[in-house]
Amino acid sequence: MARRIRVAVAGVGNNISALIQGIEYYKSARAEDATPGLARPSLGGYTVADLDFVVAFDVNQAKIGKPLNEAIFTPPNNYPRLEVDVPHLPAIVHPGPILDGVPAHLAEEFDTQESGITEEAVTRTLARSGADLLVYSLPAGAQNAAEFYARCALAARVGFVNCTSDVVARNLDLLRKFEVAGLPLIGDDLASHIGSSIVHKTLLKLFHDRGIDVESSFQLNIGGNMDFKNLTRQGGSKAASKKNALREVLRDSDSVEIIPSGGYIRSLGDQKVGVMKINGRGWAGAKVTLDVTLAVQDSSNAAGVIIDLIRIGALARDAGVGGFVDGAGYLLKSPPEGTTARSAERLENAVATLAAQAGDKRRRA
Amino acid sequence: MARRIRVAVAGVGNNISALIQGIEYYKSARAEDATPGLARPSLGGYTVADLDFVVAFDVNQAKIGKPLNEAIFTPPNNYPRLEVDVPHLPAIVHPGPILDGVPAHLAEEFDTQESGITEEAVTRTLARSGADLLVYSLPAGAQNAAEFYARCALAARVGFVNCTSDVVARNLDLLRKFEVAGLPLIGDDLASHIGSSIVHKTLLKLFHDRGIDVESSFQLNIGGNMDFKNLTRQGGSKAASKKNALREVLRDSDSVEIIPSGGYIRSLGDQKVGVMKINGRGWAGAKVTLDVTLAVQDSSNAAGVIIDLIRIGALARDAGVGGFVDGAGYLLKSPPEGTTARSAERLENAVATLAAQAGDKRRRA
Amino acid sequence: MARRIRVAVAGVGNNISALIQGIEYYKSARAEDATPGLARPSLGGYTVADLDFVVAFDVNQAKIGKPLNEAIFTPPNNYPRLEVDVPHLPAIVHPGPILDGVPAHLAEEFDTQESGITEEAVTRTLARSGADLLVYSLPAGAQNAAEFYARCALAARVGFVNCTSDVVARNLDLLRKFEVAGLPLIGDDLASHIGSSIVHKTLLKLFHDRGIDVESSFQLNIGGNMDFKNLTRQGGSKAASKKNALREVLRDSDSVEIIPSGGYIRSLGDQKVGVMKINGRGWAGAKVTLDVTLAVQDSSNAAGVIIDLIRIGALARDAGVGGFVDGAGYLLKSPPEGTTARSAERLENAVATLAAQAGDKRRRA
Amino acid sequence: MARRIRVAVAGVGNNISALIQGIEYYKSARAEDATPGLARPSLGGYTVADLDFVVAFDVNQAKIGKPLNEAIFTPPNNYPRLEVDVPHLPAIVHPGPILDGVPAHLAEEFDTQESGITEEAVTRTLARSGADLLVYSLPAGAQNAAEFYARCALAARVGFVNCTSDVVARNLDLLRKFEVAGLPLIGDDLASHIGSSIVHKTLLKLFHDRGIDVESSFQLNIGGNMDFKNLTRQGGSKAASKKNALREVLRDSDSVEIIPSGGYIRSLGDQKVGVMKINGRGWAGAKVTLDVTLAVQDSSNAAGVIIDLIRIGALARDAGVGGFVDGAGYLLKSPPEGTTARSAERLENAVATLAAQAGDKRRRA
Repeated sequence: MARRIRVAVAGVGNNISALIQGIEYYKSARAEDATPGLARPSLGGYTVADLDFVVAFDVNQAKIGKPLNEAIFTPPNNYPRLEVDVPHLPAIVHPGPILDGVPAHLAEEFDTQESGITEEAVTRTLARSGADLLVYSLPAGAQNAAEFYARCALAARVGFVNCTSDVVARNLDLLRKFEVAGLPLIGDDLASHIGSSIVHKTLLKLFHDRGIDVESSFQLNIGGNMDFKNLTRQGGSKAASKKNALREVLRDSDSVEIIPSGGYIRSLGDQKVGVMKINGRGWAGAKVTLDVTLAVQDSSNAAGVIIDLIRIGALARDAGVGGFVDGAGYLLKSPPEGTTARSAERLENAVATLAAQAGDKRRRA
Repeated sequence: MARRIRVAVAGVGNNISALIQGIEYYKSARAEDATPGLARPSLGGYTVADLDFVVAFDVNQAKIGKPLNEAIFTPPNNYPRLEVDVPHLPAIVHPGPILDGVPAHLAEEFDTQESGITEEAVTRTLARSGADLLVYSLPAGAQNAAEFYARCALAARVGFVNCTSDVVARNLDLLRKFEVAGLPLIGDDLASHIGSSIVHKTLLKLFHDRGIDVESSFQLNIGGNMDFKNLTRQGGSKAASKKNALREVLRDSDSVEIIPSGGYIRSLGDQKVGVMKINGRGWAGAKVTLDVTLAVQDSSNAAGVIIDLIRIGALARDAGVGGFVDGAGYLLKSPPEGTTARSAERLENAVATLAAQAGDKRRRA
Repeated sequence: MARRIRVAVAGVGNNISALIQGIEYYKSARAEDATPGLARPSLGGYTVADLDFVVAFDVNQAKIGKPLNEAIFTPPNNYPRLEVDVPHLPAIVHPGPILDGVPAHLAEEFDTQESGITEEAVTRTLARSGADLLVYSLPAGAQNAAEFYARCALAARVGFVNCTSDVVARNLDLLRKFEVAGLPLIGDDLASHIGSSIVHKTLLKLFHDRGIDVESSFQLNIGGNMDFKNLTRQGGSKAASKKNALREVLRDSDSVEIIPSGGYIRSLGDQKVGVMKINGRGWAGAKVTLDVTLAVQDSSNAAGVIIDLIRIGALARDAGVGGFVDGAGYLLKSPPEGTTARSAERLENAVATLAAQAGDKRRRA
Repeated sequence: MARRIRVAVAGVGNNISALIQGIEYYKSARAEDATPGLARPSLGGYTVADLDFVVAFDVNQAKIGKPLNEAIFTPPNNYPRLEVDVPHLPAIVHPGPILDGVPAHLAEEFDTQESGITEEAVTRTLARSGADLLVYSLPAGAQNAAEFYARCALAARVGFVNCTSDVVARNLDLLRKFEVAGLPLIGDDLASHIGSSIVHKTLLKLFHDRGIDVESSFQLNIGGNMDFKNLTRQGGSKAASKKNALREVLRDSDSVEIIPSGGYIRSLGDQKVGVMKINGRGWAGAKVTLDVTLAVQDSSNAAGVIIDLIRIGALARDAGVGGFVDGAGYLLKSPPEGTTARSAERLENAVATLAAQAGDKRRRA
């Protein structure tokens, strides 16, 4: 029987709110109910009900000290409150270091205070929590913070899931250390459950398969959560990561332009709108144009993938596999080089292999 | 070396205009030019330059008696005149029987006159022309006309390509007769080069693959050529065929609604606009909506596929293969039952097999 | 003080459901609440709370005999059930004659039975109800039914509001009779509260005002209520009426194409989607294109205007004014000829004049 | 008879290219041709053929020293080359001061060199040119440059037209000085011929007029010319000016969000795409949503208004009127306070008045 999965969290934003509320949403569904949006009710034997949240870190003074079930509803979080009861969660939000995690344009949204907290302190808290995995979900563009938490996880012997576009799993030095330590390191950057990148990529590939030349194409995203306020200024690592996501299908990457955040539109709240256009040429040079608008709940989109990455990480732990977990690339925008062949099939195969290895290991134990 | 392909045509509309002009467009490209929109410059050794048009049939009095290079520019045809020189084509437009090919709402657009022409006469003309294949491209909804020309082709020992949604290749009796006669019968209904069906199908499949439930979806097409004027009234066989095209990816076909022609908008000319919407549910029941608008030159879209179906038919002829040609299903909306596994790979494999068989046959000969 | 307004209804569809539920929605709002979507909280002294429904007519067997508060929720009605309590309404649905009010494609949606009911019987029921106004809201395209009810209203000395595109107020003979009788006759065809026609007209006028030439434009509407199922087949009078609505702003009406119902999409329910495009030419012939999509609750859209037409009719009654009521044209697509100068200002002025006349009359009485 | 209008130009970008090419476009039209996009073939007696370009200023080394007819085609200008012959224009591009006119992100696009040119030198060149008006059209966000050229114009006794969102006509001190000097000062910020602001404003007003509450709305613009590259970084004065343009129709300006440049998309070239959304509430709180996409040739859009502002300025000169010219507000986003009542009618009246005053003055002279 599968063990529980003990989860630590760095950055208690909308993604974590969506993750925690969604878990309760599915737990409250009766056996005969549909579970819309849950791609894998069971992944290698793990269901959404198998997670325990054990500790969290944040720099927002209004979140620090609260149990996770309260902190997820604290502004500027604006993921909607679903009609589910979120039980008391014993995980308390601890102060994290500020580093580069709060750029000026975000600082106006909430209060922070330099905690003077050290790598050793975070490592100790993590280790004591007994966490299996640390889910890293700070605003994009905080490269220092991403590396700080990765080092803490390594030192505390905790696996790491990087939800952001900052470089962690693509850092070969870090990746090797996680491998050697037998700890999973999964990243970088979530491929949304269904987001602009996967829709754009799918349609560009279609044009290619049908023999339609792509003359030019663009993708523009807008939204009203802190991520969009952040990306308007710090979109560099995100734009590069979104280009990575399209690389497989592009013949000439210069003809495709991507704007991760075309604007912070407060009234959109946690909704994200992606606008895409493809201009092509078909038979005898005839024009083909495709206009696409995708509207999603941004953080739901992330949570639907985080839930799988956590379970993949747990399977890797069970199987004693360290470093990048093969197959996870299907759920990521920027996995490490050399892992770019990505498909649903490959993910399923990798999960089956890990589950078998984990079973062998248990039986031998 | 590949032989020439002798092509007869029933219905000299925009599709044939796009086909003929497009062939000249690509022939005039220099070796170093790109050939946008030509998915397969060579298909089993055949290029676009290997076609000879030998005879044509129509009921429009203004087209009858003209050589094909003039008839394709006769109204109500409104495919644009490309900047290419279309040479004199010796194929002359012969009168066809009216049957159910000219519904009342089309009759106002051009003059017709009952020719009294018989199946025997058409068969004789076809046989004398030496055609390898008859490309059938009348307005959708003329089931009697479709069967008339299929019987003529069979009797004249000419292969048949059905571009319309009327039932020919799905008629098992006809299919068996073509098989027995060793003549290719390819149909029914073109999958557009890039059209609403393939875009819609691709996106519905994406939702499915990512675990997003499709709550509802619709597809609506508008255009300004005769096909749209026709479909507004006679869209039944077309709607069913478009549903066929989506069948593989649907869990619950009732939630998807398709309107082949939402309206005849004269100012669109030969342009076709497809409007699609998908409403889905993701993680924790969050709404996902996708709005798509596709604009294409309708007849270019058809011609880019007809060119491949003709070459596949020629390969089948060379290989001595009768009946439905395996692999062609990828380019069709409604192939006969049991041939529905469709992919670009399968098409390539089928073409390679036919080419090899044809080579063997030539060597033995 | 304003009197009550006694309202009779012919055709108990979504419009009447929206009207009745909306009235309760606003009545339940507290004084300090906003009243979104209520253009005129008071019109000449009448509020939405001043209506009494006294009798109704329909041909749907499932509605006949029910009180209006139940009949409005009977299928195929699919206007959503708002979160308001609709009180018992004493108005009972009486059988009407079928005439041309139930075309074949609607007949499959509900049961009808020829009632043999006569003009005399309907007239008698109307007269006994004490109604001030009969609101006529059957499916578009039932010209005979529209005239039948108009004659009954005239005979019963009841004013008439024609919500449909069928010709009643534009019938000069009928109009003169209502004038002579001192009864208001308001119609034809509601200008939606905010609908495709007013949006399209506003944008075409903007192009004109700015000196942008309109080369071509189209408008296409889709929806999932019975009106759309109906219009797909019987859109003739509707298309003409929608053209009327645009006439003031068009230089060359041929360049604008209108499709009242491009399709019945069941999953849209009572929602209506209007798709519009304007292609123009600006400075030095530069292309200007405008794409618009409007999504509205169709019947809400109607009810927001019906509420004003009823109150205008009541004011006319109070003032003793018969025939077409000046100013109402702003709220109609096809008012009688010679009344086409339409603006919000003109409506306000007309209302003020009527209210003053009514006051004079009351004082003299 | 109207005199010629002598025009000087500061900033030889796409706007000036569109203006000059467009003038030739209309001059080459025969009397019987339509003149699409020319709102006022004659404005107070002036046609588009009445302009003479006499001098220009720029900081792009590749433009300096060229005659205007060559400089307008020099990169990064990318307004398309129309099919008209632009004759040799004697106006030569003089070096201007760099000041704040070339932010870092633009500097990479072309070469500049600090010219050391002084206010006195520019004033002298302007005065010698005999210009009636200086059209100021630098990239937005160069407040110092805008004031520099305004002071030069004042000193050289030349009227001033400010096409940008930087503050000139709203600077009361400058405005008073132009008034006293009897020189027209027209600005600030062009209302595009047809642009996002006027479309957005028109639709918000429509919602208001129909009684639909606007819950939220946004406007986002993208494009591929230097203006968009510039605005992505320096959009502040532009966003404020676009808000000004909407002020008249807003009840609660906070609910409307505007992003002047959501992104620089190189492949759009000089095309500008505006995306707008309005979320409203109608009868009984029903949702109303409106999605709009406007695509225009950005610089054509400007030129179609500049041509009128220049002619209005010339009329003011003829009439001896200094300061802001009444009526011009209709063609501006941010005219000085107190001049905000703007309509096409007011513009026509103002033009008629000026023309009459000019006539009187001529007769008295």
